[in-house]
Amino acid sequence: MSYQAPLKDMRFVLNELADLAGINQLPGCEDATADTVEAVLEENARFCGEVIAPLNHPADKEPSFWQGGEVTTSKGFKEAFRAFTEAGWQGVQHPAEFGGQGLPKLVATPCVEMLHGSNLSFALVALLTDGAIEALLTAGTDEQKTRFIEPLISGKWTGTMNLTEPQAGSDLAAVRTRAVPQGDGTFKLFGTKIFITYGEHDMAENIIHLVLARTPDAPPGVKGISLFIVPKFLVNDDGSLGARNDVHCVSIEHKLGIKASPTAVLQFGDHGGAIGTLVGEENRGLEYMFIMMNAARFGVGMQGIGLAERAYQQAAAFAKERIQSRDLAGSNGPVAIINHPDVRRMLMSMRAQTEAARALAYVGAGISDIANHHPDEATRKANLAVYEYLVPVIKGWSTEMSENVARDGVQVHGGMGFIEETGAAQHYRDAKILTIYEGTTAIQANDLVGRKTVRDGGAVAKSILAQVRATGESLANSGNDHLQAIRRQLAAGSDALEQVVEFMVANAKSDIKAVYAGSVPYLKLAGIVLGGWQMARAALIAQNKLDAGEGDADFYRAKIVTARFFADHILSQAQGLRHSIVEGSAGVLGLPVDQF
Amino acid sequence: MSYQAPLKDMRFVLNELADLAGINQLPGCEDATADTVEAVLEENARFCGEVIAPLNHPADKEPSFWQGGEVTTSKGFKEAFRAFTEAGWQGVQHPAEFGGQGLPKLVATPCVEMLHGSNLSFALVALLTDGAIEALLTAGTDEQKTRFIEPLISGKWTGTMNLTEPQAGSDLAAVRTRAVPQGDGTFKLFGTKIFITYGEHDMAENIIHLVLARTPDAPPGVKGISLFIVPKFLVNDDGSLGARNDVHCVSIEHKLGIKASPTAVLQFGDHGGAIGTLVGEENRGLEYMFIMMNAARFGVGMQGIGLAERAYQQAAAFAKERIQSRDLAGSNGPVAIINHPDVRRMLMSMRAQTEAARALAYVGAGISDIANHHPDEATRKANLAVYEYLVPVIKGWSTEMSENVARDGVQVHGGMGFIEETGAAQHYRDAKILTIYEGTTAIQANDLVGRKTVRDGGAVAKSILAQVRATGESLANSGNDHLQAIRRQLAAGSDALEQVVEFMVANAKSDIKAVYAGSVPYLKLAGIVLGGWQMARAALIAQNKLDAGEGDADFYRAKIVTARFFADHILSQAQGLRHSIVEGSAGVLGLPVDQF
Repeated sequence: MSYQAPLKDMRFVLNELADLAGINQLPGCEDATADTVEAVLEENARFCGEVIAPLNHPADKEPSFWQGGEVTTSKGFKEAFRAFTEAGWQGVQHPAEFGGQGLPKLVATPCVEMLHGSNLSFALVALLTDGAIEALLTAGTDEQKTRFIEPLISGKWTGTMNLTEPQAGSDLAAVRTRAVPQGDGTFKLFGTKIFITYGEHDMAENIIHLVLARTPDAPPGVKGISLFIVPKFLVNDDGSLGARNDVHCVSIEHKLGIKASPTAVLQFGDHGGAIGTLVGEENRGLEYMFIMMNAARFGVGMQGIGLAERAYQQAAAFAKERIQSRDLAGSNGPVAIINHPDVRRMLMSMRAQTEAARALAYVGAGISDIANHHPDEATRKANLAVYEYLVPVIKGWSTEMSENVARDGVQVHGGMGFIEETGAAQHYRDAKILTIYEGTTAIQANDLVGRKTVRDGGAVAKSILAQVRATGESLANSGNDHLQAIRRQLAAGSDALEQVVEFMVANAKSDIKAVYAGSVPYLKLAGIVLGGWQMARAALIAQNKLDAGEGDADFYRAKIVTARFFADHILSQAQGLRHSIVEGSAGVLGLPVDQF
Repeated sequence: MSYQAPLKDMRFVLNELADLAGINQLPGCEDATADTVEAVLEENARFCGEVIAPLNHPADKEPSFWQGGEVTTSKGFKEAFRAFTEAGWQGVQHPAEFGGQGLPKLVATPCVEMLHGSNLSFALVALLTDGAIEALLTAGTDEQKTRFIEPLISGKWTGTMNLTEPQAGSDLAAVRTRAVPQGDGTFKLFGTKIFITYGEHDMAENIIHLVLARTPDAPPGVKGISLFIVPKFLVNDDGSLGARNDVHCVSIEHKLGIKASPTAVLQFGDHGGAIGTLVGEENRGLEYMFIMMNAARFGVGMQGIGLAERAYQQAAAFAKERIQSRDLAGSNGPVAIINHPDVRRMLMSMRAQTEAARALAYVGAGISDIANHHPDEATRKANLAVYEYLVPVIKGWSTEMSENVARDGVQVHGGMGFIEETGAAQHYRDAKILTIYEGTTAIQANDLVGRKTVRDGGAVAKSILAQVRATGESLANSGNDHLQAIRRQLAAGSDALEQVVEFMVANAKSDIKAVYAGSVPYLKLAGIVLGGWQMARAALIAQNKLDAGEGDADFYRAKIVTARFFADHILSQAQGLRHSIVEGSAGVLGLPVDQF
């Protein structure tokens, strides 16, 4: 159950697909030199593999627990978090002025993958803290930034996002938590928040809760929500800790997976009011939270990829060790099960989907860096639009695929996979949260359809498709059978995606429910076509390297076969998805509610 | 979390699709009159819903546990098993001469579905006992039948199947347990068996283990395996219990799901030898075990269907109650989430797949009855061949779909689905065993490819396909849009399946690994085409009933919409699967083992 960061593939994707050298040329990204990045990758891989990954399975067996309002986290988490933050890993992508390393998102992304691949439950505290830092950087006053960000980066404190309430689930318009101004610039908050990841724990001396709440005169719905900082312990002007604030953890959830990460129910204001300060302007809280959520959604996509990689590694190791039954083509005795075709098929499916999702996400991270750092405004704007199209796909598709990969991971183990001590089942349980939190796949798909496709008449989607088709044309020149097979599936997939985009744009006004009935299939279609595009680019580059006699020939040959698998087994689902979207709404919507 | 047996759909499938009236005409099936069957269904539904289903979730929270070699099962299981057997439910399909009801498999099948839908963990003791009864009926001596079957039917004792050993997961050729003849007609057994479901428990006074083992001069491999009866307590000539036998439960597994069913490690012969008696002839054990396994495989398929039905009911109930977010088409306030298109899509997917798998399995049960009871030998033989083709599909596809359905069930619940107390997560965990035990999906698929398709040159597959096409032709006459859409997908699916069968037959000798690389996709393709066929038949009958103004119009309209959904969202995957099978082996097999 060890975890080895897939550094070879990470380097390939960073350098060959996501243009790390180009990103390094952008203003503000000068520190991301090849040498620095290599040192970061190597050291992060070592740290995650040696320190964080070994805690994963034991912590699942002995999860965090609640007693008397306090949460004790799993054995080793506290020490590991200190080591993690002391080594500077919380600050990879955050500004140097607050103690971060100020590296581009593209460089932070493999670090995030490694951390999540090592230990999803542990990594969540870092993911949530990243989110809090992002929100404060976006909307905090200078004083708030000075007071809170440095301790969040250094690991003295951690951060949370407090959105969900018992009656409100995914529907933030229904938020009821009240924030009453005290006349001194502070507010008193009253309400209940649920599903608060690391809402209470013992890994840092303070917890900075970022909380959505309504001021007394706020308009109803999403336009009346403000964002507040509510620390567990109040913070004095000199940065030292003051009184215990009136926010208390009344219980934690008993969950299917990610058991080591405490999921808290937080009660604000049961003893007079939890003191908070406003972040940014009143009633603009949701806007700020969305900035934080976009970062978090990308991060959850990376969780899917990290988890998938780990499940793959575990299944591949088992399949190479486990001896059972003869080879179909004949053997003297039983052979390792990796020689049985269906085990091989499952391993290839796990590997191909993980590599495709990784490539798409890293390319997305690079596009985000261009959107943030490029000197030309039009270039920034165009790249931002592409990045925003990709975020729901990276979140939604990478997590959906991680469920399938974790499932295949159990299946490769056979009966042993169903026994908890093997560890494969933990991935299957852990993966299930990823398609739910930070917005379910349906919510990602709504975003993709509404804000990212219909709003601009499909312009961004088609601009991306033009790039996909350009890759297809490059493939046409190759004499390699694998590349030709990939080209055919990529062309068919692009056609399918284009037809679906046109269907969405054409029907969004006249038949909105029919359009949204296909939202999740559309998200999946976009994922496999864009993931397939990256695998096609990868195969093309690999073939060029082989032709030129450069680099690691085994790696390049494996990349081509993996891309071929993706084309024939994953991308080949595109026609079926297109049909379900364009023709499928009658079946989805035809039954009256009382017939369910 | 209640369970209501889907009696309406069960009656429709029994009467309209599986020809219960025709089965009732067969010799030996005379008791299965419409009145009797209705009474059985009603009473079984009541019993399962009121007595068995309420134990399901509490037992997951407080599973069976092992102490000092004994297993205490979950609260209520002992009493429920007594009530179950006293009411005669263990004996529905077993011969009247041993205390059974002697009803056809077609009538027993909905009872099996209800039991599994109510409580998978509980139902396993009945499923395994059924298996033991089948094996004894097939190969036992008259004395063995007399001694063992009646107490197994009455619930005084239960049965187990002892196949797996630590070194020999799915590979029975590797069985090492030894059976040494004692010269008095008995044998002493020595060895370790793992994954023995209900291998130890407190729900009956004795446990009849059926054990695969090797006699001293047995040939190696699968041709040297014999089947033995090894009771937990020896049985005296008068049927009373004798000495405790030397078979002991040394531990039970800590599992992902079906936690209430004890999965035992059994040690045979650590204290001098476990006394057993041979069943049938020496070295023919595997043959007898396969008879038992075929029955058990069908039963596991029914587990998938029962579980899927329950997950669907729970998700639909939640979706109707949970109020969140406005309707996309406009509403004054938040609405029940069943109105959101993607929730509706998931519910329809759960429902459509469950109904299709149910229809296929019940039709299969009817075919099995014809194969067993029809007076004409050629008819028996032809139906047996069709049934044997269907068994791996019913087992493999119904269980694979149950994983997807249980997964969607969690997803419909959103964050609440990830919390164990909601109960949706239990189905997700429980479902994962179904594609593994009684032969993984890959093993079912190997059976489908090798023994059921290639061996007869695809003859049986094509005979079934001819029936599918006949249904397609009947659909062509309908003016209903839904039926035309179904017809198109059924035709495309049939073409895909036919091409795949031809590919399998043509390439099995020349490129066996390429053929088996597509084995599981072939099984899934067969499942969706044959399931889609049954849904098409159902839609056609429903339309005829509507045209004639007969019966429950709401039910028939819902059936047509559900069949339409199946066609456009499930059957539409056929082309992609065909491609993956026919073109996909290069991707599956292209990577050398050291590249994983």
